[in-house]
Amino acid sequence: MIRTGETICAPATAIGGAIAIIRMSGTDSFGICEKIFFPTVKNLKLRDQEGYTILYGEIKSGEEVIDEVLVSFFRAPRSYTGENSIEISCHASSYIVRKILQLLVQNGAITALPGEFTQRAFRNGRIDLAQAEAVADVISSSTKSAHRVALNQMRGGFSNEISKLRADLLSFASMIELELDFGEEDVEFADRSVLKTLIIKVKDLSDNLASSFKAGNVIKTGVPVVIVGKPNSGKSTLLNALLMEDKAIVSDIPGTTRDTIEDTIVIEDMEYRFIDTAGLRETLDVIENLGIKKTYEKINQASVILLIDEISDDAGSINKRITAIREIIKETDKRLIIIINKCDISQPGRKENLTEKITLKSDEKILFISALEKSGIDDLRLTLGETTINEQLNSNDVIITNIRHYEALIHVSESLGRVLDGLYNNIPEDFLAIDIRQAIHYLGEITGEITTDEILGNIFKNFCIGK
Amino acid sequence: MIRTGETICAPATAIGGAIAIIRMSGTDSFGICEKIFFPTVKNLKLRDQEGYTILYGEIKSGEEVIDEVLVSFFRAPRSYTGENSIEISCHASSYIVRKILQLLVQNGAITALPGEFTQRAFRNGRIDLAQAEAVADVISSSTKSAHRVALNQMRGGFSNEISKLRADLLSFASMIELELDFGEEDVEFADRSVLKTLIIKVKDLSDNLASSFKAGNVIKTGVPVVIVGKPNSGKSTLLNALLMEDKAIVSDIPGTTRDTIEDTIVIEDMEYRFIDTAGLRETLDVIENLGIKKTYEKINQASVILLIDEISDDAGSINKRITAIREIIKETDKRLIIIINKCDISQPGRKENLTEKITLKSDEKILFISALEKSGIDDLRLTLGETTINEQLNSNDVIITNIRHYEALIHVSESLGRVLDGLYNNIPEDFLAIDIRQAIHYLGEITGEITTDEILGNIFKNFCIGK
Repeated sequence: MIRTGETICAPATAIGGAIAIIRMSGTDSFGICEKIFFPTVKNLKLRDQEGYTILYGEIKSGEEVIDEVLVSFFRAPRSYTGENSIEISCHASSYIVRKILQLLVQNGAITALPGEFTQRAFRNGRIDLAQAEAVADVISSSTKSAHRVALNQMRGGFSNEISKLRADLLSFASMIELELDFGEEDVEFADRSVLKTLIIKVKDLSDNLASSFKAGNVIKTGVPVVIVGKPNSGKSTLLNALLMEDKAIVSDIPGTTRDTIEDTIVIEDMEYRFIDTAGLRETLDVIENLGIKKTYEKINQASVILLIDEISDDAGSINKRITAIREIIKETDKRLIIIINKCDISQPGRKENLTEKITLKSDEKILFISALEKSGIDDLRLTLGETTINEQLNSNDVIITNIRHYEALIHVSESLGRVLDGLYNNIPEDFLAIDIRQAIHYLGEITGEITTDEILGNIFKNFCIGK
Repeated sequence: MIRTGETICAPATAIGGAIAIIRMSGTDSFGICEKIFFPTVKNLKLRDQEGYTILYGEIKSGEEVIDEVLVSFFRAPRSYTGENSIEISCHASSYIVRKILQLLVQNGAITALPGEFTQRAFRNGRIDLAQAEAVADVISSSTKSAHRVALNQMRGGFSNEISKLRADLLSFASMIELELDFGEEDVEFADRSVLKTLIIKVKDLSDNLASSFKAGNVIKTGVPVVIVGKPNSGKSTLLNALLMEDKAIVSDIPGTTRDTIEDTIVIEDMEYRFIDTAGLRETLDVIENLGIKKTYEKINQASVILLIDEISDDAGSINKRITAIREIIKETDKRLIIIINKCDISQPGRKENLTEKITLKSDEKILFISALEKSGIDDLRLTLGETTINEQLNSNDVIITNIRHYEALIHVSESLGRVLDGLYNNIPEDFLAIDIRQAIHYLGEITGEITTDEILGNIFKNFCIGK
């Protein structure tokens, strides 16, 4: 699983574009490079090449020139991985990329596993585990908030604090264990009131961080939204209108068009993720009633429910559907937005009639739109933007977005709760020590001071190749 | 259209992957970079940064850190464009790429047009026009031959020769024009026999290059193949079997899987491009008879025709279809491969019976397969590989792949043909001079010594952004 002696290589850019980057890291990087790369400037010893420099030249397979490339050199420990590394910048042809990778492998490199470069950075002490995890989040972040939170974590924002508190806890744990060694002598190396203050501090921090997870998770993965309504009410047309609008807004810089395969939109820096849109599209012509199990499940996964009705529907049946959804979402903080569609069809007095007969709760909204003519879509975007659990995030707040960290912090808080109880109730030192050790363990899991191959495997398998 | 004073910027990598590259080129590159990039090493003057070096640091928007990046510096004239250039290597997040581009634009850069970096390289004399055109071919090449031909051209392989011959022609043209200036005096500055030798040499070269276009075009764009047959004979299943097989073969290195959206396969370093595969898939259940106009057109576009029949079909009707196709392709060098499908259905003696009753021409083949069970697909790949117009290309042969060059070379050859005729028939110098000038003009169009904004516009509009 974990390989350290080998020199790894992988493409670091996606197929397409003008330039492709191939990365190589490990002791033999410069030596392997020397066998296939021939700089234009002659009589250079690549093995002696200084770090943070670039050379221009040819990649050759025997006598055949594969490409004219730029090679960047990084010397250990001043590189991403902490090892000798090179980056080959070649023409973005799938043939060239494949060929260069083949040449590197033929000359002694092995192809990198997903996330292996970052894993090496972690193992070589360049970054801690929480920072390593944030690298993948930085790459996948698509809103300003998600990016800010991920970047802050990548730059060591909260790991530093956790490491420091962990070190403090460690020194107390050692002193308490020293007390245990003295057995019956009843000495007290660890000042109980200072210990209590520290425990409270660490527990408060853990609780605060853990409670930031809900907001953090929304920031990272987006607000789940579901569109429900009777067949032919225009669910699919509405979704397309929202996605189209969003695409037009965000693709203002050429070459950076958002990937439109994902059914997400961004409003006011928050991502909204539409649930089960495949179902929405497929079941367009299929009878699908509210209240059936699938709709129930979809509503349960969502934070915002868009109930779509038609301007020609009678108020009674609309109210019936609203009541059904209220029943499902009661005692949750899910929001309901009622959308009256097909307002392009002239129905004099209908709008007023429906507004009168549909009584809304304070956190509900009603909107009259025409998905077909794309009227009212801007209002819907605004309304969606308002529904978001806005935690008034301060840009300096540390927020956690990772369920692994969340679970570890919950464990830390529980362990320290037991320590505090113990301190109040004068529980024997050996029990205190066990719980402190447990808190230290879980704090260490976050930063990677404590880790297992299994944890590492789980974390890095989700990375892309070349990172 | 053509901008020279401005500093341009663009993403140079595709969305996705681990790393993204943003390029900037122009006089202000270093100055604009200085406003948003803050190296870790302090007190550096970015404007004085040496070329071919890299700095690590932060991209900032005001106080907000956007990313931790590597910036590569290239000083004019030692850069791709010949101008001051930088490349920012950031995390491959669409948010980060967009944000950095916005920052560059806010600080004075403009977004680059497709191919504008390469166009600047051409305008600044770093490469000629044929080389510039080859850059796009190098990027899109997906077989070894296509890559070799494109790379050879990018490296100036045939432009050098053409430029040299053009210069020789130019000096003769000048001398002949000088003779004209002397009017009635009947002086001869240009040695007619040397001129004739040169004209023959250039004309032969033009003819050879022009005749290489057919092979070159196949190398560059692939061999067009069409699958025809009666409904439900398994056309779509066969196509999928071929594509699947190919995908399994070429995706041996992780991260470099071939784009499977394109309906192309590679056999023996030659690309085969299936025509009208959308039609193939859509019309699966629609009655489609051989001999109808659409099939006729498809066969006309193809170089290889795969006629698919079923093992249970009677020999008479198969022969009828074969005859129909032979009629369409007669007097062409199109190849016909007859495929008897559904051989998984046991039909004792059928194969022998059909083999006996179907008489093939020498360049035709018959294959018995089961597309469903994927048996016989390897044989089909081999047979396809054999059908290719194999011109026994020598790897040192110069081959043209560009229709613009082909057309120019035809013009060159025609003009020089008239010059030769003129020399034999002692045509007056002024007519000779006109035709030589015309040949010089067309040779110059290839390398870009003669060019118009329209030609340039046509060439570079097909480039990707960032190249």
